[in-house]
Amino acid sequence: MYNPQLNKHGELQHLLTTEGLPKAHIYSILDTAESFVSIGNREVKKVPLMRGKSVFNLFFENSTRTRTTFEIASKRLSADVINLNIAASSTSKGESLLDTIDNLAAMHADMFVVRHAQSGAPYLIAKHLHDTGQHHVHIVNAGDGRHAHPTQGLLDMYTIRHYKKDFTQLRVAIIGDILHSRVARSDIHALTTLGVPEVRVIGPLTLLPNGLEHMGVRLFTDINEGLKDVDVIITLRLQHERMNGGLLPSAQEFFQSYGLTLERLALAKSDAIVMHPGPMNRGVEIDSTVADGTQAVILPQVTFGIAVRMAVMSILAGN
Amino acid sequence: MYNPQLNKHGELQHLLTTEGLPKAHIYSILDTAESFVSIGNREVKKVPLMRGKSVFNLFFENSTRTRTTFEIASKRLSADVINLNIAASSTSKGESLLDTIDNLAAMHADMFVVRHAQSGAPYLIAKHLHDTGQHHVHIVNAGDGRHAHPTQGLLDMYTIRHYKKDFTQLRVAIIGDILHSRVARSDIHALTTLGVPEVRVIGPLTLLPNGLEHMGVRLFTDINEGLKDVDVIITLRLQHERMNGGLLPSAQEFFQSYGLTLERLALAKSDAIVMHPGPMNRGVEIDSTVADGTQAVILPQVTFGIAVRMAVMSILAGN
Amino acid sequence: MYNPQLNKHGELQHLLTTEGLPKAHIYSILDTAESFVSIGNREVKKVPLMRGKSVFNLFFENSTRTRTTFEIASKRLSADVINLNIAASSTSKGESLLDTIDNLAAMHADMFVVRHAQSGAPYLIAKHLHDTGQHHVHIVNAGDGRHAHPTQGLLDMYTIRHYKKDFTQLRVAIIGDILHSRVARSDIHALTTLGVPEVRVIGPLTLLPNGLEHMGVRLFTDINEGLKDVDVIITLRLQHERMNGGLLPSAQEFFQSYGLTLERLALAKSDAIVMHPGPMNRGVEIDSTVADGTQAVILPQVTFGIAVRMAVMSILAGN
Repeated sequence: MYNPQLNKHGELQHLLTTEGLPKAHIYSILDTAESFVSIGNREVKKVPLMRGKSVFNLFFENSTRTRTTFEIASKRLSADVINLNIAASSTSKGESLLDTIDNLAAMHADMFVVRHAQSGAPYLIAKHLHDTGQHHVHIVNAGDGRHAHPTQGLLDMYTIRHYKKDFTQLRVAIIGDILHSRVARSDIHALTTLGVPEVRVIGPLTLLPNGLEHMGVRLFTDINEGLKDVDVIITLRLQHERMNGGLLPSAQEFFQSYGLTLERLALAKSDAIVMHPGPMNRGVEIDSTVADGTQAVILPQVTFGIAVRMAVMSILAGN
Repeated sequence: MYNPQLNKHGELQHLLTTEGLPKAHIYSILDTAESFVSIGNREVKKVPLMRGKSVFNLFFENSTRTRTTFEIASKRLSADVINLNIAASSTSKGESLLDTIDNLAAMHADMFVVRHAQSGAPYLIAKHLHDTGQHHVHIVNAGDGRHAHPTQGLLDMYTIRHYKKDFTQLRVAIIGDILHSRVARSDIHALTTLGVPEVRVIGPLTLLPNGLEHMGVRLFTDINEGLKDVDVIITLRLQHERMNGGLLPSAQEFFQSYGLTLERLALAKSDAIVMHPGPMNRGVEIDSTVADGTQAVILPQVTFGIAVRMAVMSILAGN
Repeated sequence: MYNPQLNKHGELQHLLTTEGLPKAHIYSILDTAESFVSIGNREVKKVPLMRGKSVFNLFFENSTRTRTTFEIASKRLSADVINLNIAASSTSKGESLLDTIDNLAAMHADMFVVRHAQSGAPYLIAKHLHDTGQHHVHIVNAGDGRHAHPTQGLLDMYTIRHYKKDFTQLRVAIIGDILHSRVARSDIHALTTLGVPEVRVIGPLTLLPNGLEHMGVRLFTDINEGLKDVDVIITLRLQHERMNGGLLPSAQEFFQSYGLTLERLALAKSDAIVMHPGPMNRGVEIDSTVADGTQAVILPQVTFGIAVRMAVMSILAGN
């Protein structure tokens, strides 16, 4: 099967999704990231691995936080970064997405970090670069629609490995709006590939997609059952726009039923870790006592996230 | 005659227009650019020619694409770039243009890349810097009103020389809204200076300015006549705002009469090249079969554009 | 007394205000700045003092000019700068200020340059970093509400020392909207600490705050009296929003009563200098003949401002 992420030598050409990403590639990214974690604490937080490379942050959908993490990762790799807020730019002048891409590629771009509201947009770009023989440009999917957010998935794997070492003995629970979450999707694919024996999703039926059981995922609408004896809890951000969408009653009611409180956390294993992709809605999907508690590893996730993005970018640039 | 572009030694102090730009200066820019074209393909796409210099992108009119090309050119020359979207900034606080300029110059700016909706704005700035003895700041006009877009003109010359070698044997046709086009104006001046014996403009009478004949330009309202036996075709972007302006009926009708199709292209010489400054309106001024065809050199224009901008900036900074 | 600006060794941990800033620290900043003034004139305007450090410009309130000065200062110190316009970002997603701060700190930030419409916001951040043991991050207050703008205060002190040498013999007058001015407040504290024997404020009673007399400041509602024999005149920007606020009649009437004209300037000492923090409203708080006159040192203030910000940032980063 043609895999748009890999080149003909089986190396990573783009990072588009964690779905079907071979275990060896995931481990290679996590191991490379480990060497970058320590850089953050050095006096000079830079390595020259991407000196003179041009990285374009192509954000068709605004996301200051994600853009910032890629901008920092690029600068610590010594790359030149150009931020393009495309929503306000050429596309509004009627130029097609692929004409914009061709133009930037013609400027000798080395990497596009793409964020797009449309699922599949980074694939479309990857296919176009492939079909037109522009193999010098690498794509990192920084979130496309509801589909995938692979660097978030990988930094979550880094965090789990950091605290739990062995994936093959774990129970992992993901709580919240699974249906609309690219983070959940990217996490589930990576967890499955890495051999986690039990992945659970917890949420109201309206926010649990069909077909997850085929992926070996267990569904829970009762959070108390779902959290029982888990090692890892991933809470998801409840998007504000969903709250008005009729799929769930209100933020307060969501918290009543699915907010992670200390009482509920006590149902998990005593050394369970609590994760969140940020930005958090305190009092909606997570209680402040949990977010600021000893089991939360939410800020380490951020730190590891820079290292994981440096790893992905430097590996792609080297291939 | 006082030439605001040249210093007292006859060297380039600013790049404001291709009008009156001596042939030797044009050739010097094109030759310097040639040395930069290859840099784009290197592992490390940087030269230290402007290390520690401060370049300010002063965009009084928004243009992500042009701003990006200058930002990349600056970074590949190792300059520090600061992007100022002035529309949203000090001028809205009631500060005058020249006070803004004085302030930035006082920060030890080395170069202003100026984009302005008003024709002549970069001249006003150049004159002010001259009158106040601030000779350390160089200006690059990145497009002023309908007046000039000299780096686009020069990259077009680079492209023509690349494919056609000798300017003195060519027929060049420019199609579209000549009246409102700073690109057309900059091209015509440069082509004339470089000795192109026949420059043609093609468009509806309402979009052809008076007085072009005095510059030795031939006017055609019939595209079939105008394209006959030409070596180079420059298509211009039809601005959306014009389409509602009463000067022409509609985008569809424009395409009917002046859109570059394969049939019309066949009237030109068989080795004619097709250029466009971008962003393209496919199906308005150019048909997709032409834009993506073998005679189109639109993406090479983009690549050469970075090199030409690097050349202009490094020459100015060295003077 | 706990001083949030100083660490336990008495060194500068943050720069939040000039109030209570020890004289020795002010002199150390001014002396360090002096060594940076000359860098602006060099071929390569960079020093490697902050190479590999990550500086975040956190502008919760828009200010292109101030942001630009910090961006230039950072780049000339070889730091990596990331601009965050937070108004349009995470806070709009409902994330709390301190969660945003924690996230950025977790990315191994070294410095936050904070601009905020709320007085005290940088203190809140400093206290939070202290309470959570995140001592690796330094804060520079780039203006908080009506409270403080310490780098402006310090660059004003640099300018005064540059032209007047000795603070202990001076009469300094500040004209305008003292009530709402963080610049006035930062200037008054610094002038007092540096031993200026006579600080005057001049303005309509509605724009003069209570309690200034306790700080040893003399109040004048008559500009002619207030300017008599002063060595230094600091004019303040009249905020447009104030003009509609009922506290003063109109820009024209303000100019009538408090605008600095050549006639009024003649009441000061003949070698008095005229300062303004910019951007100027010509014809409101200052006449163009004065702004462009020989006694104005408004553009040198800008030049010194870069050096002073480099000094503050490099001192903080070294502590």
